[in-house]
Amino acid sequence: MITRAHCQAADALDTLAGFRQQFALPPGVIYLDGNSLGARPHSALLRSQQVVAQEWGDGLIRSWNDAGWFDLPARLGDKLGQLIGAAPGETVVTDTTSLNLFKALAAALRIQQQDRPARRVIVSERDNFPTDLYMIEGLMDLLQQGYSLRLVDEQLPLDVALDGDVAVLLLSHVNYRTGAMYDMAAVSARARANGTLTLWDLAHAAGAVPVTLNASGADFAVGCTYKYLNGGPGSPAFIWVAPAHQDRFWQPLSGWWGHQQPFAMQPAYQAASGIRRFLCGTQPISAMAMVECGLDIALQADMHAIRAKSLALGDLFITLVAQQCGQHPLTLITPREHAARGSHVSFCHPHGYEVMQTLIARGVIGDYREPAVLRFGLTPLYLSHTDIWDAVATLQDILDSESWRQPQYQQRTAVT
Amino acid sequence: MITRAHCQAADALDTLAGFRQQFALPPGVIYLDGNSLGARPHSALLRSQQVVAQEWGDGLIRSWNDAGWFDLPARLGDKLGQLIGAAPGETVVTDTTSLNLFKALAAALRIQQQDRPARRVIVSERDNFPTDLYMIEGLMDLLQQGYSLRLVDEQLPLDVALDGDVAVLLLSHVNYRTGAMYDMAAVSARARANGTLTLWDLAHAAGAVPVTLNASGADFAVGCTYKYLNGGPGSPAFIWVAPAHQDRFWQPLSGWWGHQQPFAMQPAYQAASGIRRFLCGTQPISAMAMVECGLDIALQADMHAIRAKSLALGDLFITLVAQQCGQHPLTLITPREHAARGSHVSFCHPHGYEVMQTLIARGVIGDYREPAVLRFGLTPLYLSHTDIWDAVATLQDILDSESWRQPQYQQRTAVT
Repeated sequence: MITRAHCQAADALDTLAGFRQQFALPPGVIYLDGNSLGARPHSALLRSQQVVAQEWGDGLIRSWNDAGWFDLPARLGDKLGQLIGAAPGETVVTDTTSLNLFKALAAALRIQQQDRPARRVIVSERDNFPTDLYMIEGLMDLLQQGYSLRLVDEQLPLDVALDGDVAVLLLSHVNYRTGAMYDMAAVSARARANGTLTLWDLAHAAGAVPVTLNASGADFAVGCTYKYLNGGPGSPAFIWVAPAHQDRFWQPLSGWWGHQQPFAMQPAYQAASGIRRFLCGTQPISAMAMVECGLDIALQADMHAIRAKSLALGDLFITLVAQQCGQHPLTLITPREHAARGSHVSFCHPHGYEVMQTLIARGVIGDYREPAVLRFGLTPLYLSHTDIWDAVATLQDILDSESWRQPQYQQRTAVT
Repeated sequence: MITRAHCQAADALDTLAGFRQQFALPPGVIYLDGNSLGARPHSALLRSQQVVAQEWGDGLIRSWNDAGWFDLPARLGDKLGQLIGAAPGETVVTDTTSLNLFKALAAALRIQQQDRPARRVIVSERDNFPTDLYMIEGLMDLLQQGYSLRLVDEQLPLDVALDGDVAVLLLSHVNYRTGAMYDMAAVSARARANGTLTLWDLAHAAGAVPVTLNASGADFAVGCTYKYLNGGPGSPAFIWVAPAHQDRFWQPLSGWWGHQQPFAMQPAYQAASGIRRFLCGTQPISAMAMVECGLDIALQADMHAIRAKSLALGDLFITLVAQQCGQHPLTLITPREHAARGSHVSFCHPHGYEVMQTLIARGVIGDYREPAVLRFGLTPLYLSHTDIWDAVATLQDILDSESWRQPQYQQRTAVT
C-alpha cells in the first residue's frame, strides 16, 4: 500500500527536484499535459521581452546580424542535437513538424528513386499521429507517381510489413496516444536490412526519453520543441538528417534560407551544404528565440536521470490508479514494460471526456484524446511524486463521487 | 528649390503624423527599412508579455480555447483581408510566404490539370523575389510532370509571355528591388482571358499600397506581415484564395490544422471547408499574436491617405536626391509614374554597398540589394517629410565627403 508519505520521501531523494523552480507554474495546478504544451521556463519571459523590445524595437533590421537571428536555426539545432544523439551540424530548428516531415519524406523518396526505383510503398501505423498520415497523403497525392500508404495496426509486425516494395518506414518513436515506444535501433536495423529508409517522428520522445539517432542507424527524424522541450506554444520544430544523406539530395520546399548564397539574390536555386538546405522561409524569431530557454534547462539535466524519474512516476501513476481507483472502469493502454513506453500514461474510461473536463476544473490538467482516452504527461523536470499522488487522489474523488456527471462537464469545446 | 522648412510645413499638415507615436523607434535613427522589417508597435511588447506570461505560463494548454489561439489564423486573416480587398473568410495568417506560395501554386496547377490539362508552363519575372522562383523550382522538380518556368525580363511583355501553354502567372505586385508595381486588374484580366490563373506575391504591397484582390479578379495571393504590416521579425505570412477556388481543391501541405475535424484524430485527411484548408501545422502563437498589433494600427488609418503620403514621400526623396546629390553617380531605378510604383525608392550607385553601410552607421537605415542597389522603404505611419530631408542630407554629406571609403564600411557581413 503506497501512501502520500512514501511519495514525499521519494521527493526528498529526487535529484531533479530543483529544476521545478526554473518553471513558472500557476498555483493550484498539477500539470500533466507537458506532452502537449510544456510549461514556461521563467527565463522565457525575459528572453521574449529582450527580443521584442531590444532586438526588434531598437535593433530593427540590424538584428539579423547583430543579435544572431540568422544563426538561430543552426545554433538551436546543435543544442537540440545533444538531446537526440546527433552531432553538430546535423539538426536545424525550423518550420513545423508537419512541414519537416514533408521535406524529409520527399528527400527519402528521392533517394529511393535513385537507389531502389521500383519501390512505391510507404509504411506507417494506423495509430500514428494523424497529421503525419495526412502529410504522407498530401505528398502522395501531389506526386501522382503510384505511391501507396500501407498502414499497420498497433505495434508493427515488422516481418509482415517490410517487404521489397517498401521505400520508407515512417514511425513515431513514442505513440501520442498510448505512449508505446519502439526500439529505434532494432527497427532501424531491420528496415536497413530490407533496403528501407526510416523517418522518425520524435514529437513525444525529444526531451522525454534518451534518443540516439546516429547510434541507432536512423535516416531522418523530425519533432517538435513545444512539448517536453518547453519551447512555447507552437514554437518551431526540428529536422535531423543522417550525415550520409545530407549532401545527397535537395528537398522540395526550397526557400531562400536554404540557398547556398541567400543574399546573392540569384534567380536559380542552389542548395546550401549540409542540413541548412532543409531551411525554407523566414522564421518567427520571437517564438524561436524562446526555444533556447527550454533547451538550456534540458541540457543542464542528465537525460538518464530524467528517464529514470519518468519511469518511476509512470510506475507510481499506474500503481496508484490500481490501488485507489480499482473498482472503476479504467483500462491502462500504455505498456507496463519500461523499454516499451515513453513518458506518458493513458487510460481508457467510457466517459473519458467528461472525467478529464472534471479533472481540469479541479486543477489536474491532463488531456483527452479520441476515443475515450485520458492522457497524463509525466515531465520529470517539474513534477514530483507527491503531484502524482494528489492527481490520482483527485481522480479517485471524481470517480467515487461521480461529479463528472454534472452538466458543465458534458459540453464539448472546439479544442481538447 | 526645396528646403527643410518646406518639409516641416508639409509635416504640419500631415493627417497621419499622429501614428508615429504608436511605434517604438530608437532615438537617432531614421528608419527607411520598414519594407524589410517593420518597426515595433508599442502595443506589441505588452501583447507579447501577455501571451508568454499569462496565456502560456498561467493558461497553459487551456489557452488553445480560452485565449482563442485556435481562432487566430482566421481571425487575423479577416482583419488583414480588409487591407487587401478580401471578404471575411478568404484569408488566413499562417506559415511563411514561401510555403504559402507553394500551397497556392500547387492548388492552381491542380485546377489547371482539370480545366486545361495540356498546360505546363509557369510564367514569372526574372527579377521576381528569388525565393518565389526557388519555390516554383522546388515544386516543378518534385512533380516531375514536365512543367517549365518561363522567366520574362523586367516589366512583363504580356502578349509575348502569355500563350496557350501558360497555366499560372506568378508575379510580385510590387518588385522587391525596383519598387515597380503592376496594374493588378489589367494583368489579371489579360491572364484570365488567356485561361491563365494568377498568383500574386503581396510582400511589398500589403499595407503599402491599396490592394483590391476581389475587384481585380485575382485568383491566389500570398504575402508577409513583417514588412509594412509591422508584425515582428519573421511573423507568420498570409494566403488568400478567390472564393471560386476555395472549396474546389486541396493543397498538398495537408496538416492537422486544415482538417475538417482536427481533433477527431481520424487517420484519413478530410479538408476543411474554405480557406482553413490552407492551414497545415501548429503555428508559433507568440509571434502570431503580435501580428494583430500591427494590423490594428493599419486598420485605424485610411489606406488612401497612406498611399497619398507614400507617393508624396517618394516624390520628395527623388526630387531631393536630384537637388542635393545631382553630381554623384546615383541612378534612380524606381518608376517615377505614380501608378507604376509601390512604396520604396531605389537607386544604383557603383559603391552601393559601402554607401549603405555608411548611412546605417550614421543612423539612416535603408538596405542594400544586389547588385549595387540602395533601397529606401517609405512607411507613412512613422516617417515624416523632415525625415526624408534629413536622410537625403546625410546621403549628400557621405557622398560629398566620400566617407564611405573608410575601411570599416568595406567589410561584407553575412546578412545585408
